[in-house]
Parts: sequence; structure tokens; C-alpha cells
Amino acid sequence: MGKRLVVIGGDAAGGSAASQAKKRQPDLDVVMFERGRATSYSACGIPYWISGAVEDEAALIARTPDQHRAAGIDVRMRTEAVGIDLDRRVVHWRDLDGGGEGDEPFDDLVYATGSVPMRPPVPGIDAEGVYGVQVLDDGVALREELARGSVRRVVVVGGGYIGLEIAEACRVRGLDVTVVDRSSTPVGTFDPDVGELIAEAVRREGVEMVLSDGVAAIDVGPDGRARAVVTGSGRELPADLVVLGLGVRPNVRLAQESGIPLGTSGGVAVDARMRTRIDGVWAAGDCVESRHRLSGQRVVVALGTHANKQGRVAGLNIGGGYATFPGVIGTAITKVCDTEAARTGLSSAEADAAGYSFVKAAVDSTTRAGYFPGAAPIRVTMIAERRSGRLLGAQIVGREDAAKRIDALAICIWNEMTVDEILSLDLSYAPPFSPVWDPVLIAARKAFEAVEDDVRQL
Amino acid sequence: MGKRLVVIGGDAAGGSAASQAKKRQPDLDVVMFERGRATSYSACGIPYWISGAVEDEAALIARTPDQHRAAGIDVRMRTEAVGIDLDRRVVHWRDLDGGGEGDEPFDDLVYATGSVPMRPPVPGIDAEGVYGVQVLDDGVALREELARGSVRRVVVVGGGYIGLEIAEACRVRGLDVTVVDRSSTPVGTFDPDVGELIAEAVRREGVEMVLSDGVAAIDVGPDGRARAVVTGSGRELPADLVVLGLGVRPNVRLAQESGIPLGTSGGVAVDARMRTRIDGVWAAGDCVESRHRLSGQRVVVALGTHANKQGRVAGLNIGGGYATFPGVIGTAITKVCDTEAARTGLSSAEADAAGYSFVKAAVDSTTRAGYFPGAAPIRVTMIAERRSGRLLGAQIVGREDAAKRIDALAICIWNEMTVDEILSLDLSYAPPFSPVWDPVLIAARKAFEAVEDDVRQL
Repeated sequence: MGKRLVVIGGDAAGGSAASQAKKRQPDLDVVMFERGRATSYSACGIPYWISGAVEDEAALIARTPDQHRAAGIDVRMRTEAVGIDLDRRVVHWRDLDGGGEGDEPFDDLVYATGSVPMRPPVPGIDAEGVYGVQVLDDGVALREELARGSVRRVVVVGGGYIGLEIAEACRVRGLDVTVVDRSSTPVGTFDPDVGELIAEAVRREGVEMVLSDGVAAIDVGPDGRARAVVTGSGRELPADLVVLGLGVRPNVRLAQESGIPLGTSGGVAVDARMRTRIDGVWAAGDCVESRHRLSGQRVVVALGTHANKQGRVAGLNIGGGYATFPGVIGTAITKVCDTEAARTGLSSAEADAAGYSFVKAAVDSTTRAGYFPGAAPIRVTMIAERRSGRLLGAQIVGREDAAKRIDALAICIWNEMTVDEILSLDLSYAPPFSPVWDPVLIAARKAFEAVEDDVRQL
Repeated sequence: MGKRLVVIGGDAAGGSAASQAKKRQPDLDVVMFERGRATSYSACGIPYWISGAVEDEAALIARTPDQHRAAGIDVRMRTEAVGIDLDRRVVHWRDLDGGGEGDEPFDDLVYATGSVPMRPPVPGIDAEGVYGVQVLDDGVALREELARGSVRRVVVVGGGYIGLEIAEACRVRGLDVTVVDRSSTPVGTFDPDVGELIAEAVRREGVEMVLSDGVAAIDVGPDGRARAVVTGSGRELPADLVVLGLGVRPNVRLAQESGIPLGTSGGVAVDARMRTRIDGVWAAGDCVESRHRLSGQRVVVALGTHANKQGRVAGLNIGGGYATFPGVIGTAITKVCDTEAARTGLSSAEADAAGYSFVKAAVDSTTRAGYFPGAAPIRVTMIAERRSGRLLGAQIVGREDAAKRIDALAICIWNEMTVDEILSLDLSYAPPFSPVWDPVLIAARKAFEAVEDDVRQL
């Protein structure tokens, strides 16, 4: 009898792990449990589906259950893994629709349960009309609610990536939208100047931003439905619908209950091959922690791109290959209204927290030669270590064609380049693509001059 | 008395060298000779000025003679350096308008004479109506000729970057345009599949491409003006105007005559600090050769971005600082009609010529998540060394937002990364910017699989 792999969770990480393992080792029995109604979908695409930019829910699905089945994977939809017995090496499952349950034995197990939205512990948070946007089924529910036509006022709690994307989506649908965030600028993973530009972009679209103010309570009507968000400062923001955009935390309940160790960050602890500390038990995706290559710390970063890579690595290793996931450097990108923003490495606050002594240089330039039609504003910010000049972090904010340029700087950081080395790089130049001094190179030059001045003063 | 720097050539390299040196050492006397009518202009912008996309000639000028003078540089316009006496350390100059001439003594000299267009040695090449497009004055002349309204048919000789950009510019002006190129696909610095996509883009705009056919002669009318281009295969292409787009060669005549040594590539030989082999004589820009970091060969690459950097390095060193130009890796980018293309490192032909054993992997993907509005085609090609998997070259071709992504791969090559390392990079992901597997990462994965298969077969 062949060996058996059980995968808990059928989205990006689980689906990739199952696919890769089966592909590498075709005689492997692969069973994949998914408690939702979809496999391998783009959670990041949900806001665009809600706005209507993406018409069809099916477009968000990279691989359907039937496609997985055609590849030889035994997919069990709407089936939740409710227990893992590491001694007997079985997963206990429950059919959420039929109500049946049972045990599934495994030789290898992949834990890919994803994440769950943060829910602030405030009164009313569990009322009807309060939505997270985490799994595709959340999106389905939210879209159905909006389609009913009784929602006019939406309050989004949390001004992170997802919060702002949902705010924009609701605005596109013509709703009144307010975003509440505890910080003085939204998207706190960026430095405040970038956050301010993002806030301006959102405001230009008519979204109200309530900043430096948290959520104290959800006011619930006699029908049991949320009717307002009450802020810490006492403001009452009427809402027909409340969306939680406070980020997510790793879904580790089942791991904890069954004895799969977590790491310092609260995610499942894995090594570079995606092995947990339990023999034959692997984990991947939003539920695991990764090594941050700059800070050395373990961090949880919920991103589809990591989930796909980690799932692939786990699957390859299970299938008898050898692969590693080398860690993350905090790269992220977002488009909010007409503004694009991206970051990589450490923000100023993160560099401070990690104890670095650094200089910061920002340059305002254009995405094309200044004289070229369509040249749009772009700001490149670099954070470089004092004395060494090593690039620690970078942020880009601008209009179209701006933010994806962050990848170049992510690779500079990955390779531990100094700003002095960066300013000499052979980057592409032609007038439709950049000024003759590329904004990235100008920023490096400015950062280098700051580092140099600093060294001179020593 | 202060030391004196003489700069020959007032465009990107010369202008940058003069500015930096003066900035670093304010008591330096700086004299800059420029034989044309403009300083520090964007030669790369000329095609867009000819098309009308850029309205104003002045927009192409980064720094006017008066701006240089305000910075303390003694600019001598329309003044050609006609001799360099390295023993007496003087430059002999001639005023092209007034006719005066004289000697200018120097302590340091920057040779920044740029390049001259290639002119095939065929009958009629020097006739009226045959234009190169190299300096701004060429652009002025060409634009005036087009403005006269008597030109209907244009033949562009050479299908390189500039040739195609000029062809498009003339087409935008409503002219009949034919491009003649000896190769079977245009822009020979790309692999043929990319060249073919570029050719299709140009043809879609109504430009006729005559490929695999060279120029044998220019047929000259009784008025002394070019009236047709005769190809090697005997075709006669009627032309009211002929534009040479065969590329450029370094302008080294004066260096040769005065004893400043050239390198193996035919450009002025310089070290990383931009010193020629003559003490106190520096060189920068299109006229010098650079070290290709992959092949180790010396190469001449005429590009404004290199010229600016090299000029800055020379000026910094002359001004008492320390800076180096670390070489090039062959990065280039172009937009032709609706198609963008970029390259870095070695093409297949170049990798062959350099003796590498390599695999090639190409991926057709989209610039945004496939479901996202505006997702445009992008093809990423990677050339990786067999066994080691080191990335040797990459090419990107696609529509809007595609080509500038080459910078990421340029930095991978710069850092000698393998495709295995590249496929794990923390690149930015969100649906408006890429599929969850970024096209760059998919290409790296495919190249890695090709390398891996190859190793297994050994």
C-alpha cells in the first residue's frame, strides 16, 4: 500500500503542497480537507470582486476541486479537520454539510489552515452586519449583502491594505464609506509620509478617514444588527455594514490543541524545508512563521505569494525532492484609488525597533523622463545603515507604473547591497520608462551622500 | 592661481564631470567646449520630439549653457576642440561661428566627445536628405525638413532602437515609412522571438519592414538629393528622406590623433575611476569603453545613463573625491509602438559567443492577476548557465507596465544569483501588479527545472 499524505486546508499553501507532492510522487495517496466551498482561490482578489472590477467569482479560483481531483488528489470539500492525533497519526474530520465524521490516517501531514481576521474584543463585535474579509465565503456573504441594496453606509475598521481596498471597493459601488484607524496615518507598515499620501488618495475618492481613533464598541440595534461604530474618542459613526480590516492572525488553534509547536511569533514553527518540529508534519502558508532575513526575527506574514512558495517547497520535499524557503524581507505592494505604494525591508519604525542606526533619504521624481507625456510622480525612500551604507529598507509611492519598481530594491536588500553599490547599477533607461537618472538611483545617491556626510562627521 | 580643468564635450558626460568637479572643488577653473548649440540634452528624447510627443526642444535640455555658467563653469558654445597637445598640456580650439581659434591650457582634461552615427560605405551615403540622429542639431535639422511638408516617404536604414523609434515618430506624423535591416528580425540585441514581436508591433502601425536585406546604395537624384534606397537584393525603395539608424561608434578621432590610447573595443581605454592611460586625462560617456561584468570583455555602450554616471565619477575624482564606475551588464529598454521590450546580461547569441553552455526558459504570463482588468501580456525569458544555474541574461517583452521589470533581473545578474535563488525571492505581489506567481518567478522556476533536468542527465 502507498504512503498517504493528508493536507488540512485547500487554498494556496495546501493546494500547492498537494499538487507538488502528487506530481513528484504519483503513487502517493493525497487527501485534502477544505472546510470552505472553494479551493486555491485568490483571497487578495476579493476586494476587486466586491467592487465589480472582477465580474465573476470563478475568475478568482486558480484551481477548482475538480481540477485537483483530475490531478489525482482526493479533495473533501466542506470538511473540517477538527482534531489531529499525532500518536495514532490520524486526522479527525467532520463533514460540515452532511454531518458525518471520521478519522483519516496519514504518513505525512501538511498543516495549511491559513489565518483568521483579527476581531477586537469590543462589545457588539459579533453582531450581524459585521464582516471579516478573509476567505472566499466571506466575500460571497459580503457581496450578497451589498447586492440586497439596503446598505448605504459602510464603516471599515482598520486602515491596512485590505481595509483600504475594501473601502475603495465600497466607494466604487457608490456607498458612503468611513475608515477608522488608531494610527495617525493608515497602512502603518509604511513610514508616515507614505501613509499620508495614501490617506489623501482615499480622501480624494470621497472616503472619510477617522484617524488616531480606535473602535470602542459596535452599537447593535434591537434587531441584533450593527448600526454604528463607536470610537474611543466617543464619536458614533452610523453604519449599515461594518467591515473588519485589522489584519489577520495565524489560524493555529488546531495545531496548539494537537501539540504541534508554535514559534515565538505565534505562527507554527517550521524550518526552511517547511517541517514542523513533529516528524512527518509539515506546515505552510499564513499559519506559519518565517525568518525575516534582515532582523533575524521570526515573523508571520500572510501573503498569497509566500503561501504558494511555501506550499510548493513542502510538496517538493514530501515528494522526495529538496527545496527550501529562504525567508522574507517584508516586501508588500498595494494600489489604493489612484495611488500605488510598495515597501521592502524595514520601515523607519522597524529599523528603530531592531536597533539599527540609519539615515533616510527620499527623492521625488517621475516615472518617465520629465518631458515625456504621461510622466507621473514617484517618491523613492531609502533607509540605509549608518557607516556601512547597507540598504535596510525602501518605500515607493506614486501613480501608475511606480510601485512595482520596489522589486529591484527588494533584490538589493536580499543581496545586502550598499547604497554606494546601488547607485552604480546598470538599470534600464529610456525616456518612456524613467529620467536618465532613474529615481531609484537618485535615491541611492542621496542616501549615499547622507551616509558619507555621516562618516565624515565621525 | 587655481588649477584648471578643460572638458571637451558639453553633453551628459562632459556636463556631469564639469558640474561635479566644480561642486567638489569650488576654486577649480572649469572650461567646457561644446561644438553644438546645446549642452546636457537628452539625445534619447529626440525621436519623441520629432514625433511631436514632446512639444518643445527646450524640454530635452537638462541644463542650458547659462545654467552651467551660473554654476561657475566657463562654457564655450559652438567651439570645437581640434587638437590636444599632451606635452604642452593645451587644447587647441576653434570657434565654429566666429572663426577664431586658440589654445586652452589644462591641468586636468576630460575627453567626452560622444559618438558618431555609423555610415555604411555605400554610394550616395553623403547625399542631401540622408540624416543621422545623434546630436540635438541632427534632430533640429530633421524636424525642420519634416516641417517643410515635402517629405512623404521615409526610409530608415537599420532596425535598432533608434531606427525603430524614428520610424514610429515618422509614422505618427503620417508619413510612409519603410525600415531596412540586414537581420531577419530587428533589434539584434534581442533574441529573435522578441525581435519578431517588435517587428509585428511596428508592422501593426503600418510601417513596412524589409528584413534580411542590407543597403547597397543610396540613389541620388540630379538635384544631389537622395531619392531611393537600393537594397542588396536589388529592391529600390523610394525615399524623400533617408534616416540612418545603424547605431553609433565612439568619437575617438581626436584621442587617436593626440595619443590618448584606445582599448580593444575601439573606445578610449579608461580604468574604473575614468582615468585614461595619460596622467590627468580622463574620459567618459559614449566615447569610452566599459567592462562588461559578465563576459569580462571591454565594450562600448552608448547610453545616456552610463554617460551621466561616468561623468559624475570623473568629476568626483577630479574634485578630490573617490568614485568608481563598476562596469555594465548590457541592460537596455525600448518602447516601440504599443510594445515594450528590455534586456539585461547576455542574449542567446552573446552567451554562445562567450562560450557559455546554457539553458533558456521563456514564460508567457500577464502584468496583473489574470482576472484583473487591464492584465496585459508579458513574456519573460531567462538564460541560465548549465549546472551552476547562474542567471546569464534575461529579456522581457510585453505591453504597458512590462519592460521596466527588467531592473529586478539586472540586479540578480549583478549579484550573480542562480535561478534557484531567484525563484524564492520576496518580490511584491498584489493583483493589480502581478499574478500570485510573478512572471519573473515563474520564469526562474522554469529555468531552474531546465537546469535541474540537465544536471540529472549528466
